[in-house]
Amino acid sequence: MTSFYDSLDLIFHPRSVAFVGISISNPFHWTRTFWYSCREFGFQGPLYPVNPSGGELDGCHVYKSLDEVPGEVDFVISTVSAGIAPEIVRNCADKGVKAIHFCTAGFDETGETATAGLQGELSRLAHETGVRIIGPNCMGIYCPASRLSYDTGFEKESGNVAFISQSGANSLYLVREAGWRGVRFSKVISYGNACDLNECDFLEYLIDDAETSIIALYMEGVSDGRRFLRLIEKAARKKTVILIKAGLGEAGARATITHTASLAGNDMIWETLCRQFNLIRPKNVEEMVDVLVTLTFMPDPGGRNAVLIGMGGGTSVGLTDEFERRGFRLPVLPQSIRQKLMGFSQLAGNMLHNPIDYSQDMISSDKLISAVDILTDWDEINFCVGFLRPSQMPPYVWLVMLKWSQALVKAYLGSRKPLAFICDNAILPERHTITFSLWQEFIKARVPVYYSYPGAAEALRLVVRYNEGKQEA
Amino acid sequence: MTSFYDSLDLIFHPRSVAFVGISISNPFHWTRTFWYSCREFGFQGPLYPVNPSGGELDGCHVYKSLDEVPGEVDFVISTVSAGIAPEIVRNCADKGVKAIHFCTAGFDETGETATAGLQGELSRLAHETGVRIIGPNCMGIYCPASRLSYDTGFEKESGNVAFISQSGANSLYLVREAGWRGVRFSKVISYGNACDLNECDFLEYLIDDAETSIIALYMEGVSDGRRFLRLIEKAARKKTVILIKAGLGEAGARATITHTASLAGNDMIWETLCRQFNLIRPKNVEEMVDVLVTLTFMPDPGGRNAVLIGMGGGTSVGLTDEFERRGFRLPVLPQSIRQKLMGFSQLAGNMLHNPIDYSQDMISSDKLISAVDILTDWDEINFCVGFLRPSQMPPYVWLVMLKWSQALVKAYLGSRKPLAFICDNAILPERHTITFSLWQEFIKARVPVYYSYPGAAEALRLVVRYNEGKQEA
Repeated sequence: MTSFYDSLDLIFHPRSVAFVGISISNPFHWTRTFWYSCREFGFQGPLYPVNPSGGELDGCHVYKSLDEVPGEVDFVISTVSAGIAPEIVRNCADKGVKAIHFCTAGFDETGETATAGLQGELSRLAHETGVRIIGPNCMGIYCPASRLSYDTGFEKESGNVAFISQSGANSLYLVREAGWRGVRFSKVISYGNACDLNECDFLEYLIDDAETSIIALYMEGVSDGRRFLRLIEKAARKKTVILIKAGLGEAGARATITHTASLAGNDMIWETLCRQFNLIRPKNVEEMVDVLVTLTFMPDPGGRNAVLIGMGGGTSVGLTDEFERRGFRLPVLPQSIRQKLMGFSQLAGNMLHNPIDYSQDMISSDKLISAVDILTDWDEINFCVGFLRPSQMPPYVWLVMLKWSQALVKAYLGSRKPLAFICDNAILPERHTITFSLWQEFIKARVPVYYSYPGAAEALRLVVRYNEGKQEA
Repeated sequence: MTSFYDSLDLIFHPRSVAFVGISISNPFHWTRTFWYSCREFGFQGPLYPVNPSGGELDGCHVYKSLDEVPGEVDFVISTVSAGIAPEIVRNCADKGVKAIHFCTAGFDETGETATAGLQGELSRLAHETGVRIIGPNCMGIYCPASRLSYDTGFEKESGNVAFISQSGANSLYLVREAGWRGVRFSKVISYGNACDLNECDFLEYLIDDAETSIIALYMEGVSDGRRFLRLIEKAARKKTVILIKAGLGEAGARATITHTASLAGNDMIWETLCRQFNLIRPKNVEEMVDVLVTLTFMPDPGGRNAVLIGMGGGTSVGLTDEFERRGFRLPVLPQSIRQKLMGFSQLAGNMLHNPIDYSQDMISSDKLISAVDILTDWDEINFCVGFLRPSQMPPYVWLVMLKWSQALVKAYLGSRKPLAFICDNAILPERHTITFSLWQEFIKARVPVYYSYPGAAEALRLVVRYNEGKQEA
C-alpha cells in the first residue's frame, strides 16, 4: 500500500500534465499562465492542452476532451468555470488522473447562495473517486525539481524551503521576491479553499520530505485544529517553521473562509502557540521573506551584540534605534579598536564609535574593508550590519556606493562574524538603476540583504529569538 | 531693533552667497554640491566662489579671500577644514556677513581630544562677532522661495512644511523622498552640532513663520530642555508638529552629541510629551515622510471606519490585518451595497465583502470606478484604501495595472470620501518600469500614495490619532 508521504509525493512529480480549460484563442488570457510556466520551466513529460474547441496551441495538438488524450495523464491543471468543475473531476477519475489543481474561483469564498453546494460536491467527488484535489481558488504547485510552476520567471533551482500558502497572491509575491533574493524552494503549494487536500495534509507530507528543512505557512483558516496542533508540534521538532496566521481581527476573520470561533483571543492564542513550539512568527509576507533570507544566508550569530555601520550620522543613529528597540546591544568600542581605526581613518565626517559612521572614508574601498575586518575580529560582537541608502545620497556618490558595496562583499567573504546589509530601493529611475546594481552585487555574493532597516532589525530579531529558543529547549 | 523673527528670516533670504573652501580643481568634489545646487536652483543674487588658489569656476571669477569679494555678502557656505573655521568667522565678521553655514565636520561629534575646543571657539566667536552660525557638521538651508538649496534635484516649488533636522543625511532623504511624492517645503534646516543656532532658535522662528503650517523635527539631543518644552507647547498650539527624538537606546544616546541624563526613561518621557501636546510621533524618517504625505493630501477622514480594496484575497486579508491591528474598523458591507456591486461585478475571483478583492474585474476600468463610487458613497465609512502590488503580479497584468491606477485616480477625483493608495516598489528593472508609471499616475493626481501597507496603516493611524487629539482638546 502506498504511504501517505508517497501518495502526496506523486502529486509533486507527475509524469504528464493536462491543461483543461486553457484559452486557445487568446494568448494573453490568464488561463495560459500555467501552460507558459511549465513550458518555460522545461517540464520533461508531455503537456496536453485540452479545450472543446480543439485546434493547435504553440505547435501542440489541442485535445477536445480529456479522454481524447492518447497517453496517461497524472496531473490536471483546470481553469474551467466553477459550474463545470464537478464534471471535470469525473472525467479525471475515468482517465486515471491522480490529482487536479482547480485554479478556478467562484466557490465557498464568495459567501453567496448562488455558489453554495458546489465546493461540497467537489469534496464528495474527491473522496468517492480517489482523485485528489488542490484548491479550488488557488495557484497550485511550484516544484522546481519536477519543473512544475504556476508563473513564469520563478527560479529553476531547487532549495530547502517549502511554502504552504492558502493565498495565491501572497505565494506569487513570496516566491518571486524571496527567489530573486536567493532563497530556493523545495515545494510551494497555494491551496486555496482546500475542498480536499488542506494545510494539514501538506504539512504532514513536508515533515517527512527530505528536501525540505524550512517550512513556511501562510494560513487564514484551520480545517482541523487538533490535527494541526499535533502536526505543527512535530514539524517544529524536526524543522524550522515560520507561521503567518492571517485574518486575526474582526474583518480579517470575516474575510477568511473558515470563521474561527474565538475571534477576540485569536492573536494571543497564536502567539502562545508560536512561543510554545518555537515557531517564527512574522507579521506579514514581507517580513516572512526577510526571515527566509536571514535563515538562508546568515549563520546563527549566537548572540545579540552588534556593530552597526551607517552612511551619515543620522542614518547610523536611526539604524541603532531600530536594533536597540528590539533588544539588540551595541557594545562600546574599546580604545584599542578605535586606535586601530584611527590609524587610517579620518576623524572629520566619520563617527568611530558604535554605531560607526564611515561615510567620509567611503571613497576608499581598502579602508572600508580594513575597518570591517577590525570590527568583525572584535570578540565582543556577534554580528555586523552595514546600511546603504541610495535614495538619500546625492548623485556624486552613486558610483562610490557601488564600490562600497563591492568592498562590503569582500569584507563579508573574509569575515569571522556574520554580516548583513541594508540597501533601500530608490524609486526614481536613475537612482533605481544604481540601486539595482548594488543589489546585484549583494545577491551575486549570496549575502543577507534587506530593503529597510526596520525590516532587517525585525528579521534578525525573529531569527535570533528562534535560535535562543532552540538553545532553551 | 530687529525682532528675533526678522533676524532669522534674513538668514533664509540672503541677497548674496559666498562659497568659501569650494574645490576649484575637482568638479566632482563634495564641496561643489552647494554651488551646483544654488546655480541649478537659479539663485537671484550674486554667487561668489572663494578659494585661495583663485582662477575661474563655471565662468565665474574665483576670489582668493572673502575681503576680495567686491559686493556685500549676506551668507557664507563654508566647506573649509575644521581648523580654519574660526578664522573664517573672523573674516566674515570683517566683511559684514550675517550668517555662516559650516558644512565642515570634525568638531565635538568626533568625541576626540584632538578636536576638543574648536567648537567652543566657534560658539564664542559667534557671540562676540554677532555672525550667526548654522552647524558645523550639517547640510544647512533649503529654502525654495529664496532659491537656496543644498542638493541638486530638490523641488523648486514652495510649500507649508518646515523641517528642522539635526542630521544632514536624514534631511537629504526626507526632502528628496517627500518632495518627489508631492510634499512642498517652506524652509528646511539641517543644523548639525548647533554651536550657535540650535533647534530651539529655528523652532521659535518657525512658530511665527506665516509660510509654515507643519513643523517636522528630527532631533538627537536637546540643547535647552526648558526652552524646548516652552516652545514645543506653543508650536503645537499653532501648528501641526511631527517629532522624532532619535538615539533613545543606550548606544543611540551615546552616538548623539549631547548625552541626555535619563536614558532608561527616555522613550516614556518623549511619549508622554508627545501625548500631552498632541505631537505626531513617527518612529523613523521613512514614517515621517508617510505622515507628511498624509497631512498634505488626505483630508481628515473624521473617523476610523475604512473600506479596503486589495488585489487578491490574501493581499486583502494582509491589508486588513495591518489596519485592524492599529485600531481601524472595517464595517460589514450592507446587503444593499453588495447587491449594487453584484449588479455588474463577477462573483468568481472577486470578494465583495469588506475587505474587497476586486482583482477579477480589474480588467474593466469602468467597473472599478463604479465600485469605488458605490463604496465611497456609503455613509458608514470614513475613507477608502486601494492596494496594488506590482512585485506580486504576473507579467500579463502589468499593463492592466496601469489602467487600474488611472481608474482609481478617476474614482478618487469623484469621491465624497478620502482615498489613499498603496503601490509597492518592485525592484526588478522590468517591473520597476511599470511601478514607476503607476506612481507617476498617482503623483500627477496629487493623491496620498504609500510604498507599503504597514507604512500606510501606520501613517493613517498617526494622523487620525492626531485629528482625534485636536477634537479632544
